[in-house]
Amino acid sequence: MIKVGIYGATGYTGIELARLLWRHPEAQVAFATSQSNAGGTLAGVYPTAPPLPLTSPDEADPGSVDAVFLCLPHTAAAPVAAAAVSAGARAIDLSADLRLDSPEVYRQWYGVAHPAPHLLPAPYGLPEINRINIAGARWVANPGCYATAVLLAVYPLIKAKALMPSAPIIADAKSGVSGAGRTPKLTTHFAEVAGNFSPYNIGRAHRHVAEIEQELNRNGGAPGPLIFSPHLLPVDRGILATVYAQLDPDNAPAGAYHTLYQEMYRDEPRVHVLPAGQLATLSHAVRTYDCVLSLTPVDEFTLIIVSVIDNLLKGAASQAVQNFNLMFGLSESCGLE
Amino acid sequence: MIKVGIYGATGYTGIELARLLWRHPEAQVAFATSQSNAGGTLAGVYPTAPPLPLTSPDEADPGSVDAVFLCLPHTAAAPVAAAAVSAGARAIDLSADLRLDSPEVYRQWYGVAHPAPHLLPAPYGLPEINRINIAGARWVANPGCYATAVLLAVYPLIKAKALMPSAPIIADAKSGVSGAGRTPKLTTHFAEVAGNFSPYNIGRAHRHVAEIEQELNRNGGAPGPLIFSPHLLPVDRGILATVYAQLDPDNAPAGAYHTLYQEMYRDEPRVHVLPAGQLATLSHAVRTYDCVLSLTPVDEFTLIIVSVIDNLLKGAASQAVQNFNLMFGLSESCGLE
Amino acid sequence: MIKVGIYGATGYTGIELARLLWRHPEAQVAFATSQSNAGGTLAGVYPTAPPLPLTSPDEADPGSVDAVFLCLPHTAAAPVAAAAVSAGARAIDLSADLRLDSPEVYRQWYGVAHPAPHLLPAPYGLPEINRINIAGARWVANPGCYATAVLLAVYPLIKAKALMPSAPIIADAKSGVSGAGRTPKLTTHFAEVAGNFSPYNIGRAHRHVAEIEQELNRNGGAPGPLIFSPHLLPVDRGILATVYAQLDPDNAPAGAYHTLYQEMYRDEPRVHVLPAGQLATLSHAVRTYDCVLSLTPVDEFTLIIVSVIDNLLKGAASQAVQNFNLMFGLSESCGLE
Amino acid sequence: MIKVGIYGATGYTGIELARLLWRHPEAQVAFATSQSNAGGTLAGVYPTAPPLPLTSPDEADPGSVDAVFLCLPHTAAAPVAAAAVSAGARAIDLSADLRLDSPEVYRQWYGVAHPAPHLLPAPYGLPEINRINIAGARWVANPGCYATAVLLAVYPLIKAKALMPSAPIIADAKSGVSGAGRTPKLTTHFAEVAGNFSPYNIGRAHRHVAEIEQELNRNGGAPGPLIFSPHLLPVDRGILATVYAQLDPDNAPAGAYHTLYQEMYRDEPRVHVLPAGQLATLSHAVRTYDCVLSLTPVDEFTLIIVSVIDNLLKGAASQAVQNFNLMFGLSESCGLE
Repeated sequence: MIKVGIYGATGYTGIELARLLWRHPEAQVAFATSQSNAGGTLAGVYPTAPPLPLTSPDEADPGSVDAVFLCLPHTAAAPVAAAAVSAGARAIDLSADLRLDSPEVYRQWYGVAHPAPHLLPAPYGLPEINRINIAGARWVANPGCYATAVLLAVYPLIKAKALMPSAPIIADAKSGVSGAGRTPKLTTHFAEVAGNFSPYNIGRAHRHVAEIEQELNRNGGAPGPLIFSPHLLPVDRGILATVYAQLDPDNAPAGAYHTLYQEMYRDEPRVHVLPAGQLATLSHAVRTYDCVLSLTPVDEFTLIIVSVIDNLLKGAASQAVQNFNLMFGLSESCGLE
Repeated sequence: MIKVGIYGATGYTGIELARLLWRHPEAQVAFATSQSNAGGTLAGVYPTAPPLPLTSPDEADPGSVDAVFLCLPHTAAAPVAAAAVSAGARAIDLSADLRLDSPEVYRQWYGVAHPAPHLLPAPYGLPEINRINIAGARWVANPGCYATAVLLAVYPLIKAKALMPSAPIIADAKSGVSGAGRTPKLTTHFAEVAGNFSPYNIGRAHRHVAEIEQELNRNGGAPGPLIFSPHLLPVDRGILATVYAQLDPDNAPAGAYHTLYQEMYRDEPRVHVLPAGQLATLSHAVRTYDCVLSLTPVDEFTLIIVSVIDNLLKGAASQAVQNFNLMFGLSESCGLE
Repeated sequence: MIKVGIYGATGYTGIELARLLWRHPEAQVAFATSQSNAGGTLAGVYPTAPPLPLTSPDEADPGSVDAVFLCLPHTAAAPVAAAAVSAGARAIDLSADLRLDSPEVYRQWYGVAHPAPHLLPAPYGLPEINRINIAGARWVANPGCYATAVLLAVYPLIKAKALMPSAPIIADAKSGVSGAGRTPKLTTHFAEVAGNFSPYNIGRAHRHVAEIEQELNRNGGAPGPLIFSPHLLPVDRGILATVYAQLDPDNAPAGAYHTLYQEMYRDEPRVHVLPAGQLATLSHAVRTYDCVLSLTPVDEFTLIIVSVIDNLLKGAASQAVQNFNLMFGLSESCGLE
Repeated sequence: MIKVGIYGATGYTGIELARLLWRHPEAQVAFATSQSNAGGTLAGVYPTAPPLPLTSPDEADPGSVDAVFLCLPHTAAAPVAAAAVSAGARAIDLSADLRLDSPEVYRQWYGVAHPAPHLLPAPYGLPEINRINIAGARWVANPGCYATAVLLAVYPLIKAKALMPSAPIIADAKSGVSGAGRTPKLTTHFAEVAGNFSPYNIGRAHRHVAEIEQELNRNGGAPGPLIFSPHLLPVDRGILATVYAQLDPDNAPAGAYHTLYQEMYRDEPRVHVLPAGQLATLSHAVRTYDCVLSLTPVDEFTLIIVSVIDNLLKGAASQAVQNFNLMFGLSESCGLE
């Protein structure tokens, strides 16, 4: 059994991750930390969670485990990752700290100096596009939830060099409220969210823009700018991104891309391309470990890709398990059946 | 025009009250206070609210208006009521501070000394059962939201001495989330409330038990104990109370009470008794100023009364306007058409 | 008083229209029809609706009133409009029957011959862009709900000839469930919609594409194609459209358009442009008669306009009242205060 | 492997049952029927369901399997159960057809003659109170969802003869919308349910009253009448029943019952009694196979029991699997880990 520790187990991502690791056949949860609930159990925080004891992060010893999962806020995660790596453990960081290759870009988007620049660049933990670099890695940056949905939607077009050069990629994304975290805020108050629907940080203002563009550029040259508009949905979980791609008509007709996507994702255990004519909905992915994609060709210039994931699973916890499995040489979907 | 001031205008009750007073034909809002949004406007806090400027409570002068409405937390409201009354203004207190007749009982339920005992006992502002004492009063205790729903359900039985002596009155009540206030808490986080339903303070633990029993006892001798079980509904507003009354079969058959209720509330502008066979639902009352009641006789011993109100209107703001109208000799439903 | 009749009063739009006309100071509801609830009252169908008696459409006499409002399905509405006009009444058609100028285009999108081609082209009832042709008209086509939201978002750019020629206009729209009508369907079943979010008819498949492009072309030459993607939101009412406009950078910088919108809509009683930096949310418009717009310039090529309305009000019933007021020479917002 | 067939696999209960049996280690789904989707697959009906082919019920052969599960409407289920039993298969009936011991009582509550009276009385499939009669049975009546929640709440008091003789037992119950089935109706339309909360069939009118009282009487003499008030919650799944029991104070103080419940359910794998002071909420049970109970003693005469289950799992599908396991001599929670 591989011994693991979970930092930040009582956030929404931490709870899901604890559930997954609790019944993972090759993992054993040695500790789970919580700042505010240390001394209690995870089941005491959330009724249907496993009965894991919660310890203070200060009392957790990363050197006592084989791997740590960091469900901590950005800037808090990287120092723990660094300490864990020093102590010989591997680290899967679910925060944003290891996602950007460059400390300078990190400072630009997050407004502070990077807390552990020697860990950069870290392997980007989206197995479908970077599996080879994740396998055996000592630390991995688990992608952002929005970034996962958008990258899996756009990646095949990048690889096929199908996009109109310099035309913007427009991703209109909608996320459930758990994506905003468990700390109570007015924007997550039930009476403010129920019956409402709200855009936020639209255009090029959201931090995931940097992460998505970095990976698009790394994987296929430079497409046009990403325009990314997140919205808050009155549901507890799930992300749906409606992506408008402008195609280079010299490349292939919009109708040809269904085959491209099916082939590219044919062997992926966690990505499903719907049959032509069907549209992905949030229900296709919520409480699953999968990204589900649908393709709607509009005309020779435009392709709409709808991409859905569960923000807490494929957008965070189950993707972390995929990465964990790859890092330790296990089957990628181990524990995700 | 009657000049009024609103203390605590940015809570959910304050916003509704501001809407009502803003278009009340006989009232003019001279000031509206907010601790955290002073300097802004109410429309800046909530998009569809009136464009009232918000002032700090310290800068508001209760002596400059004819009446103040207090949408403040308990213990904070009574001192402002006292100051307003001293300055010659009338006060409608929407907090719990003036609801209990006795400072000792207040201390017992609220855990602190009463901040203005010389205002007790205050007229209880439920017009349907206490209109005569509200008319012309200088200060009034606006009832609790649950108390309004339960008292209007049970009052006719009390008046008719129809209850089985010493049998408990069971009120199983369900409230929308706005009843918990606008301050973000984990218990009002969207992701915790959506898809959930939770009892809290059930039995005889909720503070409204004291208020309801006080009024039941005042109005008709001593029935059995109130068992009151509030639950949090995943809706933004509305209260539905399902009340189980055990009848004295020597008095009248359960089926006779429909006529009793219809007669007792026939002339009430803000209470409606549904025809026999219909059941009240939350939708009957949400966004209205009314209490809607339905009666379901079960057998000779048991009558079920379903009582619904909008917690922010008949349970708070529009009831405060009824009281304001009565205090100033206006038509009781003035501004509520 | 102007006598009016409402056909189809028990659908969601009909109920809202009945509420508005019931308290309209210049209108008197002479009849309200319902196929399935004839003989009852509107309040019997929906608790908080006005107590209007419901008559069978066959028994309603359009010649007995000054105006009829048609909340009927397409193909059913136009014949009633024709009959009403023949009988001397004016007609506001809330169905799609009179929206398209040409019977051929109607057949193409609706799959049947137009039921009353002599009424085409009808004045398009979006007051903000066609007020002059609505005033005094004998019949008017009330716009589609999505069309209202998208046209008010794009119209200023069309007038200013600011769009990049031939670039697509992308409108990613989200609607509450009442937009799908009151007839129960699996797609509107609570257990299918709650926690879900679904695209439908995306690309250029939705019927409102024809209507929106017709009006864009009429008002300013030919922009690029409209790409329109509706989604079903788990809320009961409201539409939010996120519109991505590609600008001709030779015209003006994206940042200049805030002033353009403010000026164009300055005197409009039912359109509000938010201050720069604010984003429109569904809550800005739900249960109001207004369209609320926010502008987010992204770069010199792209402007995002967020447009929100209440689909049942500005998207249907209150817009019909605006048109009614204009047709009869009343103040446009009469009855909408 | 035990071969099983599922009749009515596309209703909400059928889908859950198919999920459970699909991964049950000892069961193999030989067929799944659907009247309206025959020829398709279950995954085509509901995205995340297993890819089971759907056959017409007429083409399914109950003689080809070891057991059938009947997720059919009442009156349709019993004839299939009879045919299956004749053909040598065992039957777990999730409809109401086999729940009442007497055909006369069935006719009284369901308004039709019982379709297979020779199967009555059938073992009542609530393992916690009737395990001995389920083990090895050839057919079993799976309990109603409300009945499960209420019986598990009240059963310990019945066994302990703790109830005040002839005093009513009041069960105020609230259910998610999936309990009303998948067939679209106005009462399950999203726009009617969202933001609403509705009682229905309250008092002694709901059919589960007969079933609950039958089992209470069978298990412990005759308590007072059950007063049972179901309400429709705006959530997709889950039942919470707030049960008010009037105690015989000669028996034991209300505070003593926590120990009683803990002891009675100590070894039950699917029933959990919360620690004193905690209250059960819907979230404790939704998407689990368990009934969770909390006890709140009010005074010496009254005990409140809150009982929660997932209506589709412990209230239907997973309870059917418990029964299946017992009938075939498997571990009761096999397939429910």
